[in-house]
Amino acid sequence: MLKLFDLAGAQSDRRFSPYCWRVRMAIAHKGLDVETIAWRFGDKDVIAPSGQGKVPVLVHGDKWLHESWDIARYLEDTFSDRPTLFGGHEGLALSKLYSNFGDVISGQVVRFVLLDIYNHLHETDRAYFRESREQRFSATLEQVVADRDQKLQSFRDSLHPLRMTLRTQPYFGGETPLYADYAIFGVFQWARCISPFQLLEKDDPIALWRDRLLQAFNGLAASAPGYD
Amino acid sequence: MLKLFDLAGAQSDRRFSPYCWRVRMAIAHKGLDVETIAWRFGDKDVIAPSGQGKVPVLVHGDKWLHESWDIARYLEDTFSDRPTLFGGHEGLALSKLYSNFGDVISGQVVRFVLLDIYNHLHETDRAYFRESREQRFSATLEQVVADRDQKLQSFRDSLHPLRMTLRTQPYFGGETPLYADYAIFGVFQWARCISPFQLLEKDDPIALWRDRLLQAFNGLAASAPGYD
Repeated sequence: MLKLFDLAGAQSDRRFSPYCWRVRMAIAHKGLDVETIAWRFGDKDVIAPSGQGKVPVLVHGDKWLHESWDIARYLEDTFSDRPTLFGGHEGLALSKLYSNFGDVISGQVVRFVLLDIYNHLHETDRAYFRESREQRFSATLEQVVADRDQKLQSFRDSLHPLRMTLRTQPYFGGETPLYADYAIFGVFQWARCISPFQLLEKDDPIALWRDRLLQAFNGLAASAPGYD
Repeated sequence: MLKLFDLAGAQSDRRFSPYCWRVRMAIAHKGLDVETIAWRFGDKDVIAPSGQGKVPVLVHGDKWLHESWDIARYLEDTFSDRPTLFGGHEGLALSKLYSNFGDVISGQVVRFVLLDIYNHLHETDRAYFRESREQRFSATLEQVVADRDQKLQSFRDSLHPLRMTLRTQPYFGGETPLYADYAIFGVFQWARCISPFQLLEKDDPIALWRDRLLQAFNGLAASAPGYD
């Protein structure tokens, strides 16, 4: 049985880490069951056996794993008889760009949703979050998102290679999704779970792809509390 | 025997189409011989059997192929006993983003090198090129590149997902290159063949990857006239 420590807000079913969502989708892709445990920034001690302080942390038997990419590789190797997440040796190498592209998008999206994240946090996490993020951005949470409307077009433009691809195939993985899809979907699902801000136009091929993934695995992602 | 119609400048060995370079590299990857034929924008009639007017055009027996992506797929299917360009079904799907990312980079790079292209063209191509490109950009060639120094940082920033990936693996394809690599390399090789403008910092992981690909296949790309 797999156990996943999964970042949660004040509402314990509001799960909003892009990196945890990558892992949730990857586990579903493998057809595996997982117990998710609501985790908050203050709960460093419960994940200490992973040797670091961030989620996702996946526990499988006596193994404690962290980092979404490493967890996905572990799932691929350990459950190799299940549907592939990468598509072999070449697919694994080719998937890395998707993971990095997702990280870059995450770094952009946070500038739209930072204050919305704060507003959904458990009371015990708020002071830590405000202090650490305001230090990181050298600005108040309010200042970081103040110009989000002006930044929107340039954000959408930066996604153009993704958009072009999803115009000619339903998933980055082809007819069905692969980890490459989840690596980027996680970011949009994070935003959806935490913020009503509309990052994508409704008829953007990226929005339509996101909608398909929301419905995947019996609506796993769609059933999570969020904004639609 | 393969024949490739390959865009050339005034100097017939100055080959400067990003899309032709994708195909050159893909043919070399398959270990095949090719006769390249210097082609200029005015030579529409010689490629008419392909049913359209742009290079690359590859001729294999009685088959006339165009579009770099379709040519690469043809090479993969026709020479399937040779080293793979994609890595199977999943790798093919995952490679499409690289091709699109290359196209997007090409659309950015042209705004740095447009005037340099013009200056390398055969006399017979110059009027056509100036007129068609000035119409496309609604500006003179000189105006398009006038602010290239100011655009440079934002161009470099837009490549960050590529850079992050090449920090942890030598090629997008992993330990050895795949078509995904050539799809993006073609753009940088195009720029190198036509312009002294330094798009990348010398120690940028993307520049170091480009240098590795310049040396691939006994220096196929490095031996083409260009700026270093």
